[in-house]
Amino acid sequence: MKINAIAVGGTIDKIYFDAKSKYEVGEPAVRKMLVDLPIHLDVEITPLMAKDSLEMTDADRADIVRAVESSSSDKILVTHGTDTMPETARALAAVEGKTVVLTGALAPAIFKDSDAQFNVGGALAVLQSKESGVYIVMNGQVFDALNVRKDRALNRFLSLD
Amino acid sequence: MKINAIAVGGTIDKIYFDAKSKYEVGEPAVRKMLVDLPIHLDVEITPLMAKDSLEMTDADRADIVRAVESSSSDKILVTHGTDTMPETARALAAVEGKTVVLTGALAPAIFKDSDAQFNVGGALAVLQSKESGVYIVMNGQVFDALNVRKDRALNRFLSLD
Amino acid sequence: MKINAIAVGGTIDKIYFDAKSKYEVGEPAVRKMLVDLPIHLDVEITPLMAKDSLEMTDADRADIVRAVESSSSDKILVTHGTDTMPETARALAAVEGKTVVLTGALAPAIFKDSDAQFNVGGALAVLQSKESGVYIVMNGQVFDALNVRKDRALNRFLSLD
Amino acid sequence: MKINAIAVGGTIDKIYFDAKSKYEVGEPAVRKMLVDLPIHLDVEITPLMAKDSLEMTDADRADIVRAVESSSSDKILVTHGTDTMPETARALAAVEGKTVVLTGALAPAIFKDSDAQFNVGGALAVLQSKESGVYIVMNGQVFDALNVRKDRALNRFLSLD
Repeated sequence: MKINAIAVGGTIDKIYFDAKSKYEVGEPAVRKMLVDLPIHLDVEITPLMAKDSLEMTDADRADIVRAVESSSSDKILVTHGTDTMPETARALAAVEGKTVVLTGALAPAIFKDSDAQFNVGGALAVLQSKESGVYIVMNGQVFDALNVRKDRALNRFLSLD
Repeated sequence: MKINAIAVGGTIDKIYFDAKSKYEVGEPAVRKMLVDLPIHLDVEITPLMAKDSLEMTDADRADIVRAVESSSSDKILVTHGTDTMPETARALAAVEGKTVVLTGALAPAIFKDSDAQFNVGGALAVLQSKESGVYIVMNGQVFDALNVRKDRALNRFLSLD
Repeated sequence: MKINAIAVGGTIDKIYFDAKSKYEVGEPAVRKMLVDLPIHLDVEITPLMAKDSLEMTDADRADIVRAVESSSSDKILVTHGTDTMPETARALAAVEGKTVVLTGALAPAIFKDSDAQFNVGGALAVLQSKESGVYIVMNGQVFDALNVRKDRALNRFLSLD
Repeated sequence: MKINAIAVGGTIDKIYFDAKSKYEVGEPAVRKMLVDLPIHLDVEITPLMAKDSLEMTDADRADIVRAVESSSSDKILVTHGTDTMPETARALAAVEGKTVVLTGALAPAIFKDSDAQFNVGGALAVLQSKESGVYIVMNGQVFDALNVRKDRALNRFLSLD
């Protein structure tokens, strides 16, 4: 079973450029996890875009849906910024016959206290546990694509119901 | 949905006592994760025993099975040493009506490069994704309790088939 | 011997605000080190300003000189942005009867691979080893205030000679 | 100025062997720091022995003194177990014409919360700040070789006076 990890940007992949004192989206954090951790999975990484999720447009979401649909894999991990992750999950909800899991991080993967490894661990496990469907894994929880929102004031994901 | 996390020891919980230059099983690593990471789950931690898994006896396994069966929760995380985790999974395979996921770590949770957070993230996600059954989450993979072994030379988990 | 740690900002103290996807100067990183590490020193922390060193003006430097001169301590640590650290060191070079050590970090203290602890360890040791004078500790080296520059292309500190 | 880093073992270099659930002295931690951190120093590493400091004998101390005396460098870093570091410092106190700094760590360098980088940063700075003499850098403090003890109950270093 090959997993396709599509990186579209977001906090999880943020790095810091000292020269400019600025924070930018870097390499997919999942790539480094596959090196640093004792993971034995066949994962192909696709760096699709490198965007803050607040800057993501409908055209970007259409590109993500297309990438998921056209992927040769039916197990797709999408690493994504947190702010509009539920919107992208909804855009992906129509995809059929695949398991798609979106995750990201509230703190960049390069931070000492990042939730990135924990979240990606959860997302990869859901990909192997669910036959099909679209899910978000954040805050230790597994959400259905159509039943999740991010509360930006609380900085956490919640069910709609 | 309340999750019961039963800690029985193993590498994941190992700490180091400088005075004795020895490595011993300490507090459940999951407890610190619930503090350090933005996890929003109702988890009750039960420190059942604190053993290297190589030292675990049949009586210990019977105690673990009893603790799982008598738990008021039907979603049980078991953090466990890696060497005999498959044996304990098999002992638990007869438990009915509950989802039980065993995980641990190849490097202690207090190590910079530990797989503990990644593994526990995966285990918690499987608890929420599977109706029932007994599973091991290690190396990024989700194994059925009756189809997994640890290859100690390779220091990784593999399917039997 | 009391040490006065004056924080003026810079990469070492940078944190990340998820809500705004922006990187800003936060609490003095030295404060957290005094909690996290087994340090037994009498250190008083003075958060003087919170600036990227590229935005630091002559007026800011005059404020720093004044803070150093008026400090009740004669052992002063200054945590500072790296880009103009040598300029501030030169501004401080006229201070008499005190040992002043400037340091900072090329990667924020909250990053897994930050040089912050290593650098501050060096700076605190120089404070205790030199009778008086102004020094920069970066890249594992101890530089005299009047014999140091930052090569921004190489992202490292070098002696002038 | 070349620095010679002589590693003799101790907690700083401890690693963990999962297979045996045991903790052993591994590679000199300083070697990895020179790779991981932006250090620009000419350091030659000499792995002399790999001992818990409680197991160190007078013969071992004589070997360390000989290695320091015969080193082509006159700036010597000794990474050492903490329990008998003061004894070795005293054995080295007779060395003339060199600066010798001993350090180590209360938690192994591979631990998330290790003081290893902080301590080695301090030790390297003292090597560059003192003309000659033998020093211990621990707990953020710089101790004279003849005026330091480790209080094992408090797990910290103290001056004799």
